[in-house]
Amino acid sequence: MKVVITGGAGFLGKKLARRLLQQGEMMGPEGRPERLSELLLFDVAQAAGPGLDDPRVSAVAGDIANFATVQSIVQNAATVFHFAAVVSAGAEADFDLGYRVNLNGTRNVLEACRALGSNPRVVFTSSLAAFGGDLPPAVTDDTPLTPQTSYGAQKSIGEFLVRDYTRKGFLRGTSVRLPTICVRTGLPNKAASTWASSVVREPLTGVDVVCPVTPETIMVVLSPRKTVDAFVRLHDLPVDSFGPGRTLLLNGINVTARELEQAVGRHAGNRKVGKVTWQHDPSIQRICDGWPQGIDSKRAGWLGFETDRDLDEIVRNFIADDLDEQMKLTASVSLPPP
Amino acid sequence: MKVVITGGAGFLGKKLARRLLQQGEMMGPEGRPERLSELLLFDVAQAAGPGLDDPRVSAVAGDIANFATVQSIVQNAATVFHFAAVVSAGAEADFDLGYRVNLNGTRNVLEACRALGSNPRVVFTSSLAAFGGDLPPAVTDDTPLTPQTSYGAQKSIGEFLVRDYTRKGFLRGTSVRLPTICVRTGLPNKAASTWASSVVREPLTGVDVVCPVTPETIMVVLSPRKTVDAFVRLHDLPVDSFGPGRTLLLNGINVTARELEQAVGRHAGNRKVGKVTWQHDPSIQRICDGWPQGIDSKRAGWLGFETDRDLDEIVRNFIADDLDEQMKLTASVSLPPP
Repeated sequence: MKVVITGGAGFLGKKLARRLLQQGEMMGPEGRPERLSELLLFDVAQAAGPGLDDPRVSAVAGDIANFATVQSIVQNAATVFHFAAVVSAGAEADFDLGYRVNLNGTRNVLEACRALGSNPRVVFTSSLAAFGGDLPPAVTDDTPLTPQTSYGAQKSIGEFLVRDYTRKGFLRGTSVRLPTICVRTGLPNKAASTWASSVVREPLTGVDVVCPVTPETIMVVLSPRKTVDAFVRLHDLPVDSFGPGRTLLLNGINVTARELEQAVGRHAGNRKVGKVTWQHDPSIQRICDGWPQGIDSKRAGWLGFETDRDLDEIVRNFIADDLDEQMKLTASVSLPPP
Repeated sequence: MKVVITGGAGFLGKKLARRLLQQGEMMGPEGRPERLSELLLFDVAQAAGPGLDDPRVSAVAGDIANFATVQSIVQNAATVFHFAAVVSAGAEADFDLGYRVNLNGTRNVLEACRALGSNPRVVFTSSLAAFGGDLPPAVTDDTPLTPQTSYGAQKSIGEFLVRDYTRKGFLRGTSVRLPTICVRTGLPNKAASTWASSVVREPLTGVDVVCPVTPETIMVVLSPRKTVDAFVRLHDLPVDSFGPGRTLLLNGINVTARELEQAVGRHAGNRKVGKVTWQHDPSIQRICDGWPQGIDSKRAGWLGFETDRDLDEIVRNFIADDLDEQMKLTASVSLPPP
């Protein structure tokens, strides 16, 4: 079977790609495991990196807002993971770009999948940013969507589209509301939450870092390992497992910026550790404060989706899975001075 | 000030137009009443009818999915009432048309208003169809949106857009979730709720009618009078009155199809009354059963929005306000035999 990952050159896209290649098979449209024959990674730049040099992989660069392009990449696909997005602070800074990629791009993916006529499996990454404002201590499967950012609005809209296309029988869709992924590898991005990874990643690679929020700021996080586990698991579950909303809210653990900084100290060993400087940015703080301070998804629990045990596990796994590659990257670029 | 009504040739558009013309002024962008200098009625067909032959009215026909058209009609507008839509059963039957008008059309209106740069007032008609499925006995201001139709999805998406454009300071938007308007004048439309008006209107004009749902089917209704009152009232209220969701859920009263039929009998007087035949249509029944069976909006109550006292008041006001015009219309067309 052919699988497409949009945003396939991104951090999460590549992580999922490696897992799928390793695994070699996944649930097919007939409800039984099938061999992965083609994995198409689509992004604005061509996906490359360790583990992706595989005859099953094709990396295509293009514009998700171009329908003909999207139609050509999803040709014959049994599954599309739709990750491509302009992230939170990016979509807030460039309103038109956000709607172009996050709304028009998503509509293109859904329309192209509909045009296949084969009822493909579609997994759409929504976000905790779909919630906001006056929230309960922990958001649940039934908390109304009240986004406070354009990114959150676009993700909410994407969920309604996935639900409607699925209801009409055009595709078999699930939207996944992701907590903040921590620790992300690569360079800092334009997500308002990017500090939650930076304050661990940069110090462990010997680089100083500026944290733009107060030490008490809470973020609900999930590790890349558990996130990729979740994508594989939810893909293979019956599409009706996710309720009439066709949505999976993934649980995470609550950590503060200070706790993230402190966890680095506990696991640094003999490494030369970069320093965290606290330099408050009100616009980033405002976006982060508007997000949920906790998640309690009963459905994710029932369906067996796991969180990380604690922050120590998250940092240990980052060191085991990603630190070597990150060190090479850090050596090859010059990060802006904090 | 210039006011635009999209869907201005429709039943509700024309009712509101007449009220605004009569009233002669409304709240302007500076927060004080201003004289209505121009009322542009936009629709697929040119708006015409009693009360619209007024020097302040211009009626324009065109396609709301054409951005240049929309940009030209909103030029210099201080207020846009965006009513134009493909209704529920219509959007369900023609998926592409529904998204073209209800999503692309709404985006065009919002983008054109943004391009004005003058932060215009925008009132968007959402719908109870934004709710659906497993609902509480009465939906409230906090009930999550769970549409079960493409129309409901498109209206939900419109609300998110209105909220985001308002938050960004591009316009001053309010979305209004309307109960079923009863009694609508004119011909039956493609709304799955159209029977709620037909079983009153047709019999009172001497025409037999088929009701496609069971007599026990509940509909939450609001009269055209109270609906137009609500539009005028909400337009003039401060835009921040409607909470972070920028949404007003209008209360209505619950009536069954049987109660509607019976109310006609009580008010028919000496008129020759048409007969209701019950002929069940499962697809219409399914759509109607998915909608809320009650509404309890505390916000609408606090803000002084009124429902009709009872069904008798609704039928009496239909007879007083609309029956003569409806009789002329009925005489001029041949309704399909029930």
